[in-house]
Amino acid sequence: MTDILLRDDSDGITTLTLNDPGTLNALSDEMLAALSTTLAEVGDSDSRAVVLAAEGRAFCAGHNLRQMQAMRQAEDGGAAAFGDLFDRCTAVMAQIRDLPQPVIAQVQGLATAAGCQLVATCDMAIAAEDVRFGVNGVNIGLFCSTPMVALSRNVPRKQAMEMLTTGAFLTASRATEVGLINRAVPADQLVAETRALAETVASKLAAAQRIGKAAFYAQLERPLDAAYALTRDAMVANLADADTAEGIQAFLEKRPPRWT
Amino acid sequence: MTDILLRDDSDGITTLTLNDPGTLNALSDEMLAALSTTLAEVGDSDSRAVVLAAEGRAFCAGHNLRQMQAMRQAEDGGAAAFGDLFDRCTAVMAQIRDLPQPVIAQVQGLATAAGCQLVATCDMAIAAEDVRFGVNGVNIGLFCSTPMVALSRNVPRKQAMEMLTTGAFLTASRATEVGLINRAVPADQLVAETRALAETVASKLAAAQRIGKAAFYAQLERPLDAAYALTRDAMVANLADADTAEGIQAFLEKRPPRWT
Amino acid sequence: MTDILLRDDSDGITTLTLNDPGTLNALSDEMLAALSTTLAEVGDSDSRAVVLAAEGRAFCAGHNLRQMQAMRQAEDGGAAAFGDLFDRCTAVMAQIRDLPQPVIAQVQGLATAAGCQLVATCDMAIAAEDVRFGVNGVNIGLFCSTPMVALSRNVPRKQAMEMLTTGAFLTASRATEVGLINRAVPADQLVAETRALAETVASKLAAAQRIGKAAFYAQLERPLDAAYALTRDAMVANLADADTAEGIQAFLEKRPPRWT
Repeated sequence: MTDILLRDDSDGITTLTLNDPGTLNALSDEMLAALSTTLAEVGDSDSRAVVLAAEGRAFCAGHNLRQMQAMRQAEDGGAAAFGDLFDRCTAVMAQIRDLPQPVIAQVQGLATAAGCQLVATCDMAIAAEDVRFGVNGVNIGLFCSTPMVALSRNVPRKQAMEMLTTGAFLTASRATEVGLINRAVPADQLVAETRALAETVASKLAAAQRIGKAAFYAQLERPLDAAYALTRDAMVANLADADTAEGIQAFLEKRPPRWT
Repeated sequence: MTDILLRDDSDGITTLTLNDPGTLNALSDEMLAALSTTLAEVGDSDSRAVVLAAEGRAFCAGHNLRQMQAMRQAEDGGAAAFGDLFDRCTAVMAQIRDLPQPVIAQVQGLATAAGCQLVATCDMAIAAEDVRFGVNGVNIGLFCSTPMVALSRNVPRKQAMEMLTTGAFLTASRATEVGLINRAVPADQLVAETRALAETVASKLAAAQRIGKAAFYAQLERPLDAAYALTRDAMVANLADADTAEGIQAFLEKRPPRWT
Repeated sequence: MTDILLRDDSDGITTLTLNDPGTLNALSDEMLAALSTTLAEVGDSDSRAVVLAAEGRAFCAGHNLRQMQAMRQAEDGGAAAFGDLFDRCTAVMAQIRDLPQPVIAQVQGLATAAGCQLVATCDMAIAAEDVRFGVNGVNIGLFCSTPMVALSRNVPRKQAMEMLTTGAFLTASRATEVGLINRAVPADQLVAETRALAETVASKLAAAQRIGKAAFYAQLERPLDAAYALTRDAMVANLADADTAEGIQAFLEKRPPRWT
């Protein structure tokens, strides 16, 4: 039996690999459960950066449609099961946002529907140059309403609406221009480039990343004055860390910090 | 007598054409009334996509300044009439947002002030390469405050502020970069390109477009968790449609859907 | 004794120049106090546009770390003093937003941490082509939580997160693409280009700029319908100005306005 989700930890970096290439790494019941359990464990670990990668010719093609059609056998036609499915999927997206470590998507092949949502939800994303992004559920009569929550918080609204109402794909180059990913790289450099970014993230003070990431998403949803009140408190908490005191002192003395 | 607003329906696509070229298609009392009435009718029709086009050398140059100056004759100097005018204009913009069909602006020539607002308000926009966009009311002493509501939800704020405080125009190329339009095309391909986009939109399941478009604008104004709660319900409602069940089943069976 | 902040007024344009090049124009206690006092005076003056410039090889490199480390001597380890410092810094940022005049950053060299926040906070920004922008506090263990409030309201979130979690710099060219600045110009044209933009801003009706700028930031933080209600009132107030009536009339009569 092969694990549907692989975990590797080395040099402070956790790599989670979606490993169900036969379904294009669909967010099946099993995949969502594996992500939920594993993300909780990673959040409690001393990992300092997370890479979300995938096996096969797609990063992730969204929900598992066979499982969804089977849910229709219930007396209510599947309504309760569908609601529960989206709640579980949203909970996994929230776990990524709430994880203390920055999370980088390493995207190859295809990222569609909830797979595109997954990319939009990660803190950062690097993609191979030939990747195509889509929220193309409308092609089968199911508008990508939950994926658009994350997508529309990453890209301009007219770009999002065209993808949603036509099913059109975005190239990796255009995805960089509009803000969905940080950059596109040649396919044979995808792993190395993502690893280099994760190493940089992992080389910083973990407490600072944790405080900062949490404050980032919290302040985005607040009016300007409340956002400043919240981040003021984040700065004061960050400054109370002995390693931060040492980091600033080392900078003033033009020497490397001695962090614990 | 020529209609100030033309309506054509063919192949499930409604084309509304602003037809007052002598005023650069100003949003006069008559034009706003015609838009209000016609958009309500289109919303109740079985149209599947809407194109908003225009006759003449401008798409739309904003409000009718002659009518506005005449309002100053009232005892209050026009204050009540001005307020009423902006309420009627805002109501038309809200009708576009609330229309069940996706709306595509087909932009030629010039789109200024409330004309630029109209482009920003449509769900998508395609423009001829020589179009110029502006919110240049400041040139005559009237800051484009209502147009900026739509503009600032489409483009980065420094870009918006430069246009607003200087009256500077945006080229169609730069408008694409910053997100105001989906793309610019050669002027002689404008009609065909817009039509092709509308045909793609119209070829999808209308119920999915209706549910998705409404959820799109509703979720944009909510915090992340509330946005997901709202779109979860939209997905469940969308999945309850028999045509959506058929669309998914057809996809799994690798055959075209048999939609009603 | 040299003033830490220089003020020049000519042709209706106020130029404020950060003048502490030895600290890379750090936002020290003295600099924040000088900005607070001077911005209040400029707000009460008949100035029509403001340029925020700087002396030396950096525009501004953020907070004064020596002063911050000294605050740690207090009984509470500096917590109260740090909170007070960020409150004073946030108040200066709010003064820029609340100033009746549009404010343009004229950026040379380096803009980092709270210096990058200053650029993001100004209404517009022009930079020399070789400028680098960063929110690189994470390099010394202090995540740039307050600067990110302004940054994340200017640029896409994945771009912001990469800068924040890695300390990576943005070129002026990329800063233009993502919306942090209006444009980059050759270093030897920086002063002239910024001046030209300020002259255009200053040539418009000051009352219109004041009403419009205040409405711009107020409406950005409101849902769409409330944003329209607010800007409707701004339009009505703007139209009540006799100079605006004259501006519109002059336009209709194809003559220059006779403004008071």
